[in-house]
Amino acid sequence: MPRYEVLTPEALDTIERGWRRLVSEIGVQFDHPRALGLFAGAGQAVDGDRVRFDPDWVLEQVAQAPSEFSMRARNPEHDLVIGGDHMIFAPSQGPPFVRLGDERRDGTLADLERLIMLTQVFDELDTPGGNICEPDDLPLDSRHLVQNLALITLSDKVFEGDPFSAGNARDSIRMGEILFGGREQIEERPVMFANANVNSPLRYDPRMLDSMLEYSAAGQAVLVTPFLLMGAMAPVTIAAALAQQTAEVLTGISLLQLVNPGNPSIMGSFLSAIDMQSGSPAFGGPESALGVYASGQIARRYGLPWRSGGGGLTASQTVDAQAGTEAFNTMISAFLAGANVVWQGAGWLEGGLVNCFEKFVIDVEMIQLLRVQFTPPVIDEEALAFGAHEEVGPGGHFLGAVHTLERFRECFYRPMIASTENFERWTKKGSLDQNARAAKLWPELLERYERPPLDDAIEAELTEFVERRTRELGDEVVLHS
Amino acid sequence: MPRYEVLTPEALDTIERGWRRLVSEIGVQFDHPRALGLFAGAGQAVDGDRVRFDPDWVLEQVAQAPSEFSMRARNPEHDLVIGGDHMIFAPSQGPPFVRLGDERRDGTLADLERLIMLTQVFDELDTPGGNICEPDDLPLDSRHLVQNLALITLSDKVFEGDPFSAGNARDSIRMGEILFGGREQIEERPVMFANANVNSPLRYDPRMLDSMLEYSAAGQAVLVTPFLLMGAMAPVTIAAALAQQTAEVLTGISLLQLVNPGNPSIMGSFLSAIDMQSGSPAFGGPESALGVYASGQIARRYGLPWRSGGGGLTASQTVDAQAGTEAFNTMISAFLAGANVVWQGAGWLEGGLVNCFEKFVIDVEMIQLLRVQFTPPVIDEEALAFGAHEEVGPGGHFLGAVHTLERFRECFYRPMIASTENFERWTKKGSLDQNARAAKLWPELLERYERPPLDDAIEAELTEFVERRTRELGDEVVLHS
Repeated sequence: MPRYEVLTPEALDTIERGWRRLVSEIGVQFDHPRALGLFAGAGQAVDGDRVRFDPDWVLEQVAQAPSEFSMRARNPEHDLVIGGDHMIFAPSQGPPFVRLGDERRDGTLADLERLIMLTQVFDELDTPGGNICEPDDLPLDSRHLVQNLALITLSDKVFEGDPFSAGNARDSIRMGEILFGGREQIEERPVMFANANVNSPLRYDPRMLDSMLEYSAAGQAVLVTPFLLMGAMAPVTIAAALAQQTAEVLTGISLLQLVNPGNPSIMGSFLSAIDMQSGSPAFGGPESALGVYASGQIARRYGLPWRSGGGGLTASQTVDAQAGTEAFNTMISAFLAGANVVWQGAGWLEGGLVNCFEKFVIDVEMIQLLRVQFTPPVIDEEALAFGAHEEVGPGGHFLGAVHTLERFRECFYRPMIASTENFERWTKKGSLDQNARAAKLWPELLERYERPPLDDAIEAELTEFVERRTRELGDEVVLHS
Repeated sequence: MPRYEVLTPEALDTIERGWRRLVSEIGVQFDHPRALGLFAGAGQAVDGDRVRFDPDWVLEQVAQAPSEFSMRARNPEHDLVIGGDHMIFAPSQGPPFVRLGDERRDGTLADLERLIMLTQVFDELDTPGGNICEPDDLPLDSRHLVQNLALITLSDKVFEGDPFSAGNARDSIRMGEILFGGREQIEERPVMFANANVNSPLRYDPRMLDSMLEYSAAGQAVLVTPFLLMGAMAPVTIAAALAQQTAEVLTGISLLQLVNPGNPSIMGSFLSAIDMQSGSPAFGGPESALGVYASGQIARRYGLPWRSGGGGLTASQTVDAQAGTEAFNTMISAFLAGANVVWQGAGWLEGGLVNCFEKFVIDVEMIQLLRVQFTPPVIDEEALAFGAHEEVGPGGHFLGAVHTLERFRECFYRPMIASTENFERWTKKGSLDQNARAAKLWPELLERYERPPLDDAIEAELTEFVERRTRELGDEVVLHS
């Protein structure tokens, strides 16, 4: 399907002038000696922890990043292609809380495991990512190990390494090596994502840089994502926010290319606004949508695979009409703008503080719907179905026509949860709204889950690694809930 | 903003071949002697009540319809331009039931009056249309008179005449004449809409034709709308449904042009699918959206103002996440496809059987949001706000910046109902979801309603006309609730 492009070539030029001026005059703070050393070595102007860039050099660096690359999953059927016309989806990442029906509480390892299993069940979700919810019942230092073990054993899709520190990154990479047979195997083709959130405006902090340096040294796929709430981490105009986002992404990706020329790198975007009345972030509004449309154009201009800020985003506290409209607005924006990677694709509630199990399946249904909607319809002589008109004639009915009977199973999109039942039948069945129907559905889907087979020796080595590292980090060993 | 166009020029050609073959080989049934006489007189092949057309003649007729025209409201500030880049919105039309909170019941005159008043309150709604709900407590024969009186006295926006029969059309036209001072005044510029639903497939029934003949003779704006549920009134492929829709619309508009060359005519479209499991219509799904995208292109090909099938459509029985997503999908499709007229823009629930007061205001909020989203963002040097970056610097915060303080009131879209409050505050305020907040809002908005002034003599003449015609039709006189 065609992309929806709202920026004129002149507007794109203006944004380019904007980021060029930002990186060369204001510069970007990189709070990490090694990063500063790399930039200085490449001839960029380093002043304290501030780097002022030659914009043309930045573009040369960015040009080394592949515009399309493939990723290896432990089940080859779940290998991914990132870039071009491909779209992949991950559920929400990072919520500290979960919601199940009316219960809202801290996330646990058991919740994370169930969310990984739900991700495995759905073909629409291409990767569990990493922390679909924060397992708050695990000790912080070793949490990433248990999380990785759950991701690797409960799912056979590409996973996300932990980006919290250099140590966590090294542990994640080591587990990837165990899974795929060694360093060479994972360097050949990336096997995990790592997401780096910029400390906007114009700053990369030491932990994030540690993680970026580790993952790019291992050739893994790094998403560089400015998280911009206009009015807080960015100016209030869309033009300024886009220029800043581009400045941040391109300089970050330049660093990845310095470490490992050709490193698979994904331009991230996440643009929304502060609600000036509540002071809280807004999601699913017009600023986000415009940001997504424009960011897709910017990513294509610089030949980068692109993670949209789209997904099932909403500020709503519950699974209501607001959640539906806001999530739909961000999700359809990702489709319209041609996003390659959609993070936060299922479960997001309360501005990302909550992963809600009901919303999880409702969002997957949204992806299913939009996948059909963004498949070009066949318009040819056969599809004109003149014969059906000859058969039915003016004033007739197509329901019993041969044309219909031959096609009725496959011809239309069929939702999992949405209901078209008439009021009487719907009432008789308990007047369940979309949220209540979703609450019945997800436990049924979990029952369909099958643990993907994993070589016993590999699983034993992974388990041993997690146990050893957990002890080294001073925590008590927990392997699963 | 640019339009989202999904059909290639070749696909548009294929659809043109499709409708040409339909109108010339199958033909269209026009169940009305006068219509048949007009077509025969113009050299088209009439066989019984079936007319087979020369497609080139159809296009010549259609070319007489203006691609853009203006309409006169009794308040000149509410005059409308139909066509071009203009979009106008009307609430739902025709629901027999209303929903207020958990109460679902037959519509009444009191409900209709309140819905007209709500329409008057919102700048986003350009016309009340006609029967925002069916006032079931009024006798059927004279209902249209009381309805028109309510539309004319409670609102000063362009209204819709009743399309149910020739008599109802004549009464509606007469009331327009009284309001604007005579036949000549309303012929000069149309003052009311009339919507004609085709009895698809390929059939116009006597009542609808009666009404089309009356309204076009008076020069009023006629919408010709095939209501196509694929699998019931149309084949199951989108290509076939679009060809059929075009055949139906263009032949109907040809008739309007025969009666009154140059008559303001609007191509209607309303394309959805039957849920093959429940047998009920589905709304807000991928088929509807694709139908809307494509119909916009077809309307522009033939130079006709266009009413999209978009609006706040949903099959949902209640104001839940499904209602939110489905309504948003059809509404944003209307924006993406560049619809000129959006009927069913507020209140629609249960596949159009219900006008829900809560959904009414939620849908208006959706229109507000999308109006901002589809206003091109300013991308220029000033909007780049370089000074804000100089002021804040890497790692800083924009909330207190001069750039933000100067702009914070106007810079972002502000919703009426959607909430960004944090969970604690939201819980303290009663855990109200979007539906519950809307239930509190609409009565407050109704209190802001002011009855627009109307000349006493005109109001007296209208009342007298309604009283007289009601008695002639054998009903007891009711003027308002």
